[in-house]
Amino acid sequence: MSDIPASHPRYKSLITREQLAGYAKSGVVSMEGLTSHGRGEAFDYLFGEKTSASALEAEKLGARVLLAAKHPVLSINGNTAALAAKEIAQLQKASGAEVEVNLFHRTDERMTLVTNLLEEAGCIVSKGPVERCVPLPHARGLCRPDGIGSADVVLVPLEDGDRCEALVSMGKLVITVDLNPIDRTSKTATLPIIDEVTRALPNIALECDRLKASGETVTMPEIDARYFLSQAVKDIQEFLSHALD
Amino acid sequence: MSDIPASHPRYKSLITREQLAGYAKSGVVSMEGLTSHGRGEAFDYLFGEKTSASALEAEKLGARVLLAAKHPVLSINGNTAALAAKEIAQLQKASGAEVEVNLFHRTDERMTLVTNLLEEAGCIVSKGPVERCVPLPHARGLCRPDGIGSADVVLVPLEDGDRCEALVSMGKLVITVDLNPIDRTSKTATLPIIDEVTRALPNIALECDRLKASGETVTMPEIDARYFLSQAVKDIQEFLSHALD
Repeated sequence: MSDIPASHPRYKSLITREQLAGYAKSGVVSMEGLTSHGRGEAFDYLFGEKTSASALEAEKLGARVLLAAKHPVLSINGNTAALAAKEIAQLQKASGAEVEVNLFHRTDERMTLVTNLLEEAGCIVSKGPVERCVPLPHARGLCRPDGIGSADVVLVPLEDGDRCEALVSMGKLVITVDLNPIDRTSKTATLPIIDEVTRALPNIALECDRLKASGETVTMPEIDARYFLSQAVKDIQEFLSHALD
Repeated sequence: MSDIPASHPRYKSLITREQLAGYAKSGVVSMEGLTSHGRGEAFDYLFGEKTSASALEAEKLGARVLLAAKHPVLSINGNTAALAAKEIAQLQKASGAEVEVNLFHRTDERMTLVTNLLEEAGCIVSKGPVERCVPLPHARGLCRPDGIGSADVVLVPLEDGDRCEALVSMGKLVITVDLNPIDRTSKTATLPIIDEVTRALPNIALECDRLKASGETVTMPEIDARYFLSQAVKDIQEFLSHALD
């Protein structure tokens, strides 16, 4: 029931905001999550709101990592579920990864809301008792011991830098999806994908499908995280150099 | 009642988000406003979270414009009130400008909440009947005919590009405060101040106080908006060139 006029030049972005605001009202997205989304919007603006060549390379590498993993898990928070529930289901199907819900602002009610949203979109969500497996203060260290706790590869879209760092410190291979190439999340990741989540996840899924169809034996690839970060920074600088033309 | 651990490296930013989330719960800030705040956060990050030399120049020029104006008005929305009510009161006192509330997501209840917040911080808020003075569809064109409607100078912190453009089209001199130098708000403004609102407003107020104390006759200055935009873009590019060091 939007009252944003369709003539508004940023109509699409405002409508997405309004949808997320609706998810905040229902409790799927935390209010702090709305602000995080805004940070992402700003960086996406600086990429011209499209997947860069190096981000697509990172996404294809991400597909190899997921297929080569022994126990890959997609760690999903409220924002990711609200923005990309269908895309998560598509990636789960293509990669065979577990889906586990993990919330920064964790309550039983939000866990249920996010889980339901994912299941309605076709995800198979791993549930069960959690323990403080991740070395973090507060409820943020909680996860399933036989899920994220024992995963060798974890994909964490729109993740906090603190938690990303903690997962890496546990020896896990961590793939992030985040539009800011210079924050701790991207800088800490084993494989930083600098792209918008609804563009990134389908690209990873399509490459999983392609690799499986090819019959190729997929092995764990070498990853040059620094390359992806510096290419993303270069892309933003290039965008800025024409932004006032 | 924050449960964010003080050990979190982005503690301060997360606490500000939490405060704004509180204002969203009480209705001062719209949920869409939380997302807008996130966009600002992202750009402030790219300025190293400090006022640049050129932003300070713009703020000093803004003080001259406000003092030289015949009828200056500070147009205040929910985010600006939530972030900077005290700073608005300080600037009103220093500049003698009217304060008028203007909301993108306008309801009578929010108008009252924002007005109360400003008055509690010491602002004198102009109230009274509104008409569609600004050429915009929807309630966003509403303002007081004897306030923003007849102002020669309007300061619009954290304003939407559409409304900024409409005010300029009415022949008004429009000063914006916005951290994004390449969006329509900043590009359209007569005087774009590219800075964070709680830093910018006190800088303008201090310069108003200094100019008044100096006894100088303040006349309307020449403004090179393009200079402020291009300096801000250069500052971001410079920050990015060291961001991965």
